[in-house]
Amino acid sequence: MEKLKIADKTFDSRLFTGTGKFSNSKLMREAVLASESELVTVALKRVEAGNEEDQMIASLAHEKLSLLPNTSGVRDAKEAVFAAQMAREALGTNWVKVEIHPDPKYLLPDAVETLKACEELVKLGFVVMPYIHADPVLCKRLEDVGVQCVMPLGAPIGTNKGLKTLDFLEIIIEQSNVPVIVDAGIGAPSHAAWAMEIGADAVLVNTAIAVSKNPVQMAKAFKMAVESGRMAYDAKLGKTAKIAEASSPLTQFLYE
Amino acid sequence: MEKLKIADKTFDSRLFTGTGKFSNSKLMREAVLASESELVTVALKRVEAGNEEDQMIASLAHEKLSLLPNTSGVRDAKEAVFAAQMAREALGTNWVKVEIHPDPKYLLPDAVETLKACEELVKLGFVVMPYIHADPVLCKRLEDVGVQCVMPLGAPIGTNKGLKTLDFLEIIIEQSNVPVIVDAGIGAPSHAAWAMEIGADAVLVNTAIAVSKNPVQMAKAFKMAVESGRMAYDAKLGKTAKIAEASSPLTQFLYE
Amino acid sequence: MEKLKIADKTFDSRLFTGTGKFSNSKLMREAVLASESELVTVALKRVEAGNEEDQMIASLAHEKLSLLPNTSGVRDAKEAVFAAQMAREALGTNWVKVEIHPDPKYLLPDAVETLKACEELVKLGFVVMPYIHADPVLCKRLEDVGVQCVMPLGAPIGTNKGLKTLDFLEIIIEQSNVPVIVDAGIGAPSHAAWAMEIGADAVLVNTAIAVSKNPVQMAKAFKMAVESGRMAYDAKLGKTAKIAEASSPLTQFLYE
Amino acid sequence: MEKLKIADKTFDSRLFTGTGKFSNSKLMREAVLASESELVTVALKRVEAGNEEDQMIASLAHEKLSLLPNTSGVRDAKEAVFAAQMAREALGTNWVKVEIHPDPKYLLPDAVETLKACEELVKLGFVVMPYIHADPVLCKRLEDVGVQCVMPLGAPIGTNKGLKTLDFLEIIIEQSNVPVIVDAGIGAPSHAAWAMEIGADAVLVNTAIAVSKNPVQMAKAFKMAVESGRMAYDAKLGKTAKIAEASSPLTQFLYE
Repeated sequence: MEKLKIADKTFDSRLFTGTGKFSNSKLMREAVLASESELVTVALKRVEAGNEEDQMIASLAHEKLSLLPNTSGVRDAKEAVFAAQMAREALGTNWVKVEIHPDPKYLLPDAVETLKACEELVKLGFVVMPYIHADPVLCKRLEDVGVQCVMPLGAPIGTNKGLKTLDFLEIIIEQSNVPVIVDAGIGAPSHAAWAMEIGADAVLVNTAIAVSKNPVQMAKAFKMAVESGRMAYDAKLGKTAKIAEASSPLTQFLYE
Repeated sequence: MEKLKIADKTFDSRLFTGTGKFSNSKLMREAVLASESELVTVALKRVEAGNEEDQMIASLAHEKLSLLPNTSGVRDAKEAVFAAQMAREALGTNWVKVEIHPDPKYLLPDAVETLKACEELVKLGFVVMPYIHADPVLCKRLEDVGVQCVMPLGAPIGTNKGLKTLDFLEIIIEQSNVPVIVDAGIGAPSHAAWAMEIGADAVLVNTAIAVSKNPVQMAKAFKMAVESGRMAYDAKLGKTAKIAEASSPLTQFLYE
Repeated sequence: MEKLKIADKTFDSRLFTGTGKFSNSKLMREAVLASESELVTVALKRVEAGNEEDQMIASLAHEKLSLLPNTSGVRDAKEAVFAAQMAREALGTNWVKVEIHPDPKYLLPDAVETLKACEELVKLGFVVMPYIHADPVLCKRLEDVGVQCVMPLGAPIGTNKGLKTLDFLEIIIEQSNVPVIVDAGIGAPSHAAWAMEIGADAVLVNTAIAVSKNPVQMAKAFKMAVESGRMAYDAKLGKTAKIAEASSPLTQFLYE
Repeated sequence: MEKLKIADKTFDSRLFTGTGKFSNSKLMREAVLASESELVTVALKRVEAGNEEDQMIASLAHEKLSLLPNTSGVRDAKEAVFAAQMAREALGTNWVKVEIHPDPKYLLPDAVETLKACEELVKLGFVVMPYIHADPVLCKRLEDVGVQCVMPLGAPIGTNKGLKTLDFLEIIIEQSNVPVIVDAGIGAPSHAAWAMEIGADAVLVNTAIAVSKNPVQMAKAFKMAVESGRMAYDAKLGKTAKIAEASSPLTQFLYE
């Protein structure tokens, strides 16, 4: 299978994970490692929060694992740029996931501020990965300003509803020249496999792993589902049909 | 993970496969083996058709693989019972998948004749696995006459449409005392994972593997998806939510 | 618009209603009349329950309105036939809606017993209208024994989930020589319109009207939706398309 | 029923229509009048195109009908503002539907340019009605700059796919302080009723009427569906349920 490449990094795994909502850091670490993810997103807040959170970050140290700071909590482009700069200093990485959501209830992203922040962050030398609505035109504009990938949502974050934006994800994937990573809404391995089957380059999963009764096993399940979906995409699925076709030969054999 | 048990057989794999629609026997054998399926269904017609088909059957000989003759092509209970008896003699197995579809276009199963055939086949000592509509009441009646599992359809056979009968499959799974195997309609690994996530005991996949550009790789993809879905079922998925919850902490950290 | 004909009756309205779950008889009568339905189903139990229920029946007396006794509460064919005969005597009608649901939780119909009951009731001179699973093969068998219409469910009764059985309803409608009436699951006027748009001959709605805050207004809404859906069916809907087409001319007019 | 109010106009009808894709102006006029719509959108191109198109506009002259020029064909905010000004002069109305779609294939709207255009048009004294992606955050920002309503799409324009953006429309409707008009994607009266049932203030329908075999009848069907859906919204629909509830009393009456 072709490897995923973003900026200067090559990934064996097409499953990205997050660090939120786990009951403790140890479980989080075990689940992230079980997922075999090579990119894990962390909120800047945590990086800044002192001792306990430093340990969380430290616990993620692993040769195969890169940290992807996100700007969760910011409300506009200015705050996002500031947060990204803080993260670069604190974590020594110029990668940043841009999340701008002024809306405290549904945490949906702000298209206009995201474009503005991305444009500036690209100029500042960041590898920019924007979390956005599944808006195909916005994706092209982000590509134009130089983001390294786009991260459209499948459903509102934390809802586990799957690919509610399917019709738009398909257009985004068809049109994009940068990797498309489905982020938010993926609540089950079947959703992750589905995203890969339609041609997404990767998925980011956090809530569905963290809130499971058994996050380590769920992380493994997602790992397999993502690989499975990608293999199916490469092997090409059959079309859906209106009229059934028998898979066994249909003949009146008994009285022939 | 708990193993699947049907009658006296225990299965490591929860993926059952079929032999129809492959472009040749060699590819079929390779794909079936790649799937790691332990139960593969064959149409009786083929068993009877002489030399070439004998070779097909021979090609499936493998210590881990059992044959499951099906009655595809019969139109009523009487024909089904006769076909099952022929298969028992020809293949030396008392397992039979009952498929009765008088409808030559959509190949949908006949509830009334299926119940009649199953009742008689159980009395004749068969291990009976009926392919049926996703009808919860029929499933209970089949269970009452002694079938070893039920095989409700997810969508019309050969359509690749997935779990169109979801609402009814959930009721069947909730109520059943015998294994529930989703058969027909599963057109992608994500569908198979989904079926396992809702608690199906196994899935049967044929068309989606056979018509892929790369059946061997697709067979592996299905194998992984089925395992993934079962693992997720065991690890328990989170609920879908109306209101989003952030997976990263949402705080106005910058100006605190 | 073509009128609906069942047995010897011709209907101006393609909306059938029920009498259950209303908070009182007066409201029920008002809602049924507001719906302009010409066929309203009543449970036999009510007919038998004496005074109060007699008044309910009496309250439905109206020149445009026919009663359709149903066998709700019976568990097998024998009980259904007996119930139908009681209803014929009590209400002076040979029309009967056959409902056989041994399952007390989901109230799903029993295919095998329904076919048996219908066969006998047709012989006994009834106009037989069976409530069934959306099973296309069963529909053809019922047609073969002489039922006057088929009444497949859209979703489990009382769930308001709409046309969950869409793929199967479309096959039933394509194949049927008797009217197809979607019964159960219709929870909103949009569901009723949808059923008509795909070519259903009528719908039966009860819960969605009865449990509304304003049953009389909801009855009118359903009346309009059913007419709207039928008009759209007659006027032919456009196809769904993958690629958008502008409804306004797309030209670079400003700088031409 | 409460009337819809936008800026200084009050509407009896919650169905807005368009003028594209009809086979001729006479049929267009008849269909628009049959719909009883009071607001009909016209592309500026047509207004400018001279004689034939002038007749088209003239043919829409009707005391109950207002014209809503749209900016279809423009690619950015600057072009949109210019087009709106031309329309104001040509048609003598300060109402404008802002449509900015740089993408010639799917005709999806540009969030960033739309916000920019709307902000300026509001300042220029227009009644601004923006056609947008179903992006709840963008809707709030548009509201903040003073648009008179928001017009999120249900599905890509011209696809007839219905409310593919349901989850996001529900959030928009919940949060909006200006009327929400679902525009694009509505391909059947059932879709229109559905949009109204979830609380949309109006719908705009063009393709589905224009491409029907009988546009006049289809227009009437949409009119009824919109009224039906609004009535249902006012009368309050029941909730969807997991467990069925019988609408007829379920009792073992025969042997009591």
